Parts: sequence; structure tokens; C-alpha cells
Amino acid sequence: MEYTMRSIFWDENLQCVKVIDQSCLPIELRYLKLHSSMDVAEAIQKMVVRGAPAIGVCAAYGIALAARESSHSDKDKLKVYLHETGQFLLATRPTAINLTWAVENMLSLVDQFSGSVSELQEALLSKAQQLADEDVNTNLAIARNGAELLMDEDVIITHCNAGALATVDYGTALGVIRLAHEQGKRLHVYVDETRPCLQGARLTAWELTQYGIPYDIIVDAAAGYMIRSGKVDRVLFGADRVAANGDVINKVGTYMLSLAAYDNGIPAYAAFPMSTIDFTSPNGDAVPIEERDPAEVLELSFQGKAVMPEGATARNYVFDITPHRLLSGLITESGVLYPPFFRSLAVLKHAGRNL
Amino acid sequence: MEYTMRSIFWDENLQCVKVIDQSCLPIELRYLKLHSSMDVAEAIQKMVVRGAPAIGVCAAYGIALAARESSHSDKDKLKVYLHETGQFLLATRPTAINLTWAVENMLSLVDQFSGSVSELQEALLSKAQQLADEDVNTNLAIARNGAELLMDEDVIITHCNAGALATVDYGTALGVIRLAHEQGKRLHVYVDETRPCLQGARLTAWELTQYGIPYDIIVDAAAGYMIRSGKVDRVLFGADRVAANGDVINKVGTYMLSLAAYDNGIPAYAAFPMSTIDFTSPNGDAVPIEERDPAEVLELSFQGKAVMPEGATARNYVFDITPHRLLSGLITESGVLYPPFFRSLAVLKHAGRNL
Repeated sequence: MEYTMRSIFWDENLQCVKVIDQSCLPIELRYLKLHSSMDVAEAIQKMVVRGAPAIGVCAAYGIALAARESSHSDKDKLKVYLHETGQFLLATRPTAINLTWAVENMLSLVDQFSGSVSELQEALLSKAQQLADEDVNTNLAIARNGAELLMDEDVIITHCNAGALATVDYGTALGVIRLAHEQGKRLHVYVDETRPCLQGARLTAWELTQYGIPYDIIVDAAAGYMIRSGKVDRVLFGADRVAANGDVINKVGTYMLSLAAYDNGIPAYAAFPMSTIDFTSPNGDAVPIEERDPAEVLELSFQGKAVMPEGATARNYVFDITPHRLLSGLITESGVLYPPFFRSLAVLKHAGRNL
Repeated sequence: MEYTMRSIFWDENLQCVKVIDQSCLPIELRYLKLHSSMDVAEAIQKMVVRGAPAIGVCAAYGIALAARESSHSDKDKLKVYLHETGQFLLATRPTAINLTWAVENMLSLVDQFSGSVSELQEALLSKAQQLADEDVNTNLAIARNGAELLMDEDVIITHCNAGALATVDYGTALGVIRLAHEQGKRLHVYVDETRPCLQGARLTAWELTQYGIPYDIIVDAAAGYMIRSGKVDRVLFGADRVAANGDVINKVGTYMLSLAAYDNGIPAYAAFPMSTIDFTSPNGDAVPIEERDPAEVLELSFQGKAVMPEGATARNYVFDITPHRLLSGLITESGVLYPPFFRSLAVLKHAGRNL
């Protein structure tokens, strides 16, 4: 790949984490410096950093920063502080399981560590770096597995942003599209704008521009018409959590998009790393769905005018559950899983690969 | 009803048509004066007046205005001009069939008229007035028939605006909700914001505020989650055209909303006057779907910032087709029709009532 835009990295000179400020795109590509675990928590909570894999890696750096910011010279006290910080980071966003996965990964290192405080600080930073690097490699493997499903001249609908910005680099669902494009397949992408926070219109459209992949933005509600009128070959999105039966929890709207695909015999695929699988949730209904500030729905202007009546109220659930029966395949770094997903996921679990 | 907000009426003093400028709501309730058939065409094309029944009546006034603006003292030449104006008005928006219905109704009067030019001018204005008054009575009948389907404490999702603003007064789908509320039923409405032009967030939310009916705005993509998580009892919307088999063409997003209702065993109803039925279209796929200016998708700011990347492109199909199999009932002024709709609609046709 020629173009890279690593969205999260450690700045060795400034000794801080740098992230692309996703709230400023597509107007401006700006990097934000995160100096403390509190900075990390705020960046995740405010969706300056968003996307399940990106959140996970960012939280891992948050634990590494916590170990450095702490004044505890006593290792046991430091470990308690790191566990508290872990809980604090976990509370920022409840749905994406990669956050839990990354924090548990880091805390497991903390619990097992027998060296000095400064060695622990160093080990945590190395571990966060390793998770970041692994994420890129994982995404490249997802892309290789998924790209085989895309044909020359395919028209694809994607929802939200599952690109480089949602990960450390390259992306999951958008990584699949990106690699197929790099392989010379001529693709066209319809980008769901993805209200309320418009990650599709703001971020996916911006990424596709960088990659030179042709696209058109559509309103989320138009996906059904596009599919039903024969304009679409495939539907492809990421995931914030996948239950043991293959139910996919992803950005709100994914469920209706998948219904429309299923109703018209168009395959719908979710692409995600295995760290997104939650084997402790038997199905999607067991997963907490985040409700965010209604302001995200209400703070909108259309053609230069405010939209909502004074005193308008809103509800803002930001994820939904797509039942596994609507999905044709799950694209992971270990391969594409096919129905019945409870079985193909269980095989993956027992193989124990990377889990 | 205590509150009235007739959205289209003839101003006797100013000798012009006055319409609520729907592009200014909810910021400002402003009336626009239409002095000519060209004014009418522009108001319809720019969606200053929108909603299938409102468009129909507005076009009828357009023919009446054309008869007055014409310099033709020769009746046959005037008739030709009125037919030309009719074609011109029909071209403003292709999907809503009420436009065709109203223009044909007016031109049929023109064709049969044997009086003088000034008598024809008078007759056309009277006819437009009559269509306007009939629309209000029709909506009240729709509301009476539909309100029986709503229960106390029902939670309803509605899409777009099918209220007083979309008609001459009272509304179709929203009229049903309004009457049930006036009957003392305690309702809660989830209002789909309805991108791109946000008729739900701008107009339906504003109307519900006027009527004192509690509501929350949701993004269109969230309807599936609301329904699937058991928060919704019924789905209710209007129609821009209904095919002979009961397929409903309505604001884009209606199809996926209906899919979500069907997938969860929640009834979905369309409410519309019989003038919305197009017996010449055997099914929804025979109906032209309007594609409007992509600017409607692209001209958006979120939390004070522009959303779309520079050079972003968009597609903007503004209606979709909901297959009849997803609908539980069609609410008309003659009663509620149940499946199989091809049969219940045919009965209505042969009864010839109001058609």
C-alpha cells in the first residue's frame, strides 16, 4: 500500500500518544496529543477516537500512560492504580468489546509482572505498541480474506466507518474494499452517511477519496431503495461486538441495512478482528447498547438553517443488533466464517488461535 | 379540534393562494403568496409545499391561477394554455400521484366547460376550493378510521411528515395520531428525522408540539433498534402513491422501516386518501422514483461544522417502494383495507366511491 495514515501512534520525542482527531475530519487532518490516561478516556468518550479496534489500542496506551503518570513508587500500589484506571477506561463506552479485550490484556500483564516499577512502565508501553502493530497486521489479514469475496465491478454499500480511522491503520470492512481496489478490481461504494455523527459522510468518504475509490454518499434511509432497485451487489460493514451465535452489534442502522440485503438476496458481511468476538454473550440481546447525548441528534443544520424545533427532545441509541440469520459471512483474520455461525465461531474458539 | 393551521388557502382580498412556507419551519411560521401558475410550480418543485395531498390541491390552484393570468380571451386558446400549464405542473414532481389526480380533475372540468372565459375562470377557482375543502374532510375521515387502530399508551414510529402541513389541514398518518390523542389516548411518538430534508425533525416534531403530543426525534437508522428492543407498538406513515396491489411508495426509508416492523411482528399502516391510489400501476416497481439534487444530501452541518469532504458526491432518491406483504393495513377515508390488498383495493375501485 502506498498511502498510510496510522491513526494512533507513540511519539517517542514528545513521550505521548498521538491520535488523528476524528471530530475535525474531513475539514482538517489534525493530530491530538494524549499525555495521560484521563486524556485517553476523554478522547474515547468524546469520539475523537472511535471505531472498536482503535478504541481498544487507544485504551491500551491509556494503561501505559497511567503507569507513567502515577507517582506510586510501590509496585503493588501502582498495580491497584492501574486496575482503577482500567475500570475508568472501560466505563467510557460500553458496547465495543475490543475496549475490554485491550484493557484485560494490559492488566493481565500487570498482574503477572514481577520486575520493577520502571520495568513495568516500559513493559506496558511495549505491550501497547505490540497491540497497535498487531492490529495493522490483523487488518491486512482480514483484508486478504475479505477481498476474495469482492468481484470486479462490484457495487458495495458500507455503513459508518470501518476504515483506517476506526483501527490503527488499514481498516476492517473498508480495508477489504481498499485491498480489492489495490488488486485492480473496479468498485463503486455507496456510503451511508451514518447519522447521528455522520462517520460515513465525514470519515469513510474522506478515506475513499484518499484511496481513489469512487463513491457516492447516500442518506441511511436510502440504502433499502438502492438495494431493492438492483443497484447494489454486496453489503459490508464492521462490528463493535460479535456474540457467540454470530449476532453482530454495530453502528445503529446496520440491522435495517442487513434486513434490506436479506430481503433482496444480497450478501451482507461483517469484517472484524477476533478481539471483537465476545464468547460470554450467547446472543446480541445480552450486549449493552450505548445511549449517548441527544445533542448528537439535535445539533444539526440543513442548508444553513437550524433543523429542530425549540425544546425538541431526542433519543440516541448508537448501536443495534443484527441477528446472525441476516448475515452471509463473518470476515476475520483467520478466514471467512459461514453459517451456522455458532458452530464456526466455536471452532475458532477451540482452535484458540489468537484468543 | 381547537387548533387549525390550514396550509393552503385562497386569499380573497389579495386574490392569490397563500401557503405555509415549509422550508422556513420550524424556525418561523411564514406564509408565501402564490400569484401565478409559475409561482405554484416553483413552490412544489422547491418543496416549499410538500406532501402528496398538499401538492395536489396546490396544483389545482395553479390551474385556477393559470386561467386568470392568461391573456387569452378566446376560450379554446385558453383551454390549450391550461392543458400546457397542466403538463408543466405535472413535471414538477414525478412520484406523488395526487398531483396527476388534481390536475386531471381540473382539466376534465376545462374540457367539459361550455360557458364563457370568465365563467371558466370562476368555475376553476371554485373547483380548486372544493378540492381543498374535500381534502380536509377526507383527512378527518381517515383519522376516524385510523384512530380505532391505536390503543391507549401506544408508542408509534412515524416517518417524514404526513400531518396538516402535508395536506390542506389535519393530516393523514399524523391526523390519525392527532385524533386518537384528542380522544384521550395517551400516545408517545418516535419521529424519524427523515433525511435528507428532515421533514420529521423539522415539521412533524413541530406539529406534535402544537398538538401537545409527547415525542422524541430519532435518527432514521435507529428505528430498527427501537422496534427490535420492544419500544414500539405500531408504525404509521403516509403515502405518495399506492399501486393496485397495495405496494406503497412513500418517503425514502419507509421500506426499511416496514421491514423492521414486519421482522418483529409490529403492525405497519399507511394512511392516505383514495386520490393517492394509482390503479394503472400494477405494482410499486412501475412507479417512477424521483431523484433530486444531491445538494439536499450534502448541505449539512453537524455541531457547527460542515460534514462532507470537498468534492463529495451523492445520490438522492427521495422515495422508495414498500412491498404490500410488509403492511398490516391501508387506512383510507372509506375504511381500513386489509390483505390481500389487490382484492380490497379492487373492491374499493369497483364500488367507485369518490374515485
